[in-house]
Amino acid sequence: MRADAKRNRDHLLTVAGAAVAEQGIDVSMRDVARRADVGLATLLRHFPTREALLEALLHTSFDELTAKASELELSNAVEDALVSWVRDCVAWTTEYRGVTVLMAAAIDDPESALHASCVTLRAAGARLLARARNAGVARSDIDGDDLFALIAMLAWAGDQPALAHRADHLFDIVASALLTRPGGSQDRGVTTKGETADHR
Amino acid sequence: MRADAKRNRDHLLTVAGAAVAEQGIDVSMRDVARRADVGLATLLRHFPTREALLEALLHTSFDELTAKASELELSNAVEDALVSWVRDCVAWTTEYRGVTVLMAAAIDDPESALHASCVTLRAAGARLLARARNAGVARSDIDGDDLFALIAMLAWAGDQPALAHRADHLFDIVASALLTRPGGSQDRGVTTKGETADHR
Repeated sequence: MRADAKRNRDHLLTVAGAAVAEQGIDVSMRDVARRADVGLATLLRHFPTREALLEALLHTSFDELTAKASELELSNAVEDALVSWVRDCVAWTTEYRGVTVLMAAAIDDPESALHASCVTLRAAGARLLARARNAGVARSDIDGDDLFALIAMLAWAGDQPALAHRADHLFDIVASALLTRPGGSQDRGVTTKGETADHR
Repeated sequence: MRADAKRNRDHLLTVAGAAVAEQGIDVSMRDVARRADVGLATLLRHFPTREALLEALLHTSFDELTAKASELELSNAVEDALVSWVRDCVAWTTEYRGVTVLMAAAIDDPESALHASCVTLRAAGARLLARARNAGVARSDIDGDDLFALIAMLAWAGDQPALAHRADHLFDIVASALLTRPGGSQDRGVTTKGETADHR
């Protein structure tokens, strides 16, 4: 790609990122073009569909989450590795309002521009989950598909104004369902944010 | 209400019910009027907003779910009463595609025509949950708001084509998070559909 073409593309991505952060993923291509001060045809030459634009936008985040999972796979704290990665995934979706529905659709649709990224992300989660299962700290009847679905459900809840304020607590409830805690407390030792992220 | 006015109203509700079952709750008032073979003004005289129409439509279902909860409150099987009621709520939302987002918004919005029904439903669930908590079979850190949110999350997942086929399993995972099972199996004795609904 020529330097000026790359510069134009980066400019469009920056503008699109700001638009999505403000308006969610339903932002129109026309609106992105207007904000970037280019014609719609120019935008469409770089990104033929909104999905292609979103894919480019989300690519960096997906890569980061996948890299984070690979890093956590080296950790001895297998339970924390799983829970904190799930937390990161849920937290990330709050940056892109509406992305959850898109991901839930893309995971099943090989035609979607987001499909490959979603599949990679799901595989990364499945590896962390398998480690936790092998160590006996995660339930044996949950797989990568379930994990992806639970992350999507938590992300959806965080996106609903009436539910968002309880998002952390809902996360703890769902996270506790992933884990086995033989001989745990009556309340199953809900994992609190601090504990999971840092202290074990 | 005069007999012919009631007949007209019932006809509109029947038509609206079929339209929602087909197209989800985003069905337009114009479309309902067209299907009912009346002018939009006539429809709006009976139901000034789509929310008012949906409220009338959902009212019977809400009443049934609330009545079911009251009935289950008399059951000695407190854990099963809670789980089977939650299952009924989730199953019901599949009849009205898209209703989850509406309910998640209405519960927080006293201006919504659905607000009162949602609040009544949440209170019914909270009573079943309180009984289960008092009996030591439900987690003590989950309240009626959490239960409502978890039901909404499960309903949302059931509404996503890529996640719907796993809805029963996701239900079992989330239901297990509601419950305390002191001394339970490593996998926390996932509740299966048959067990919960009929056999204890």
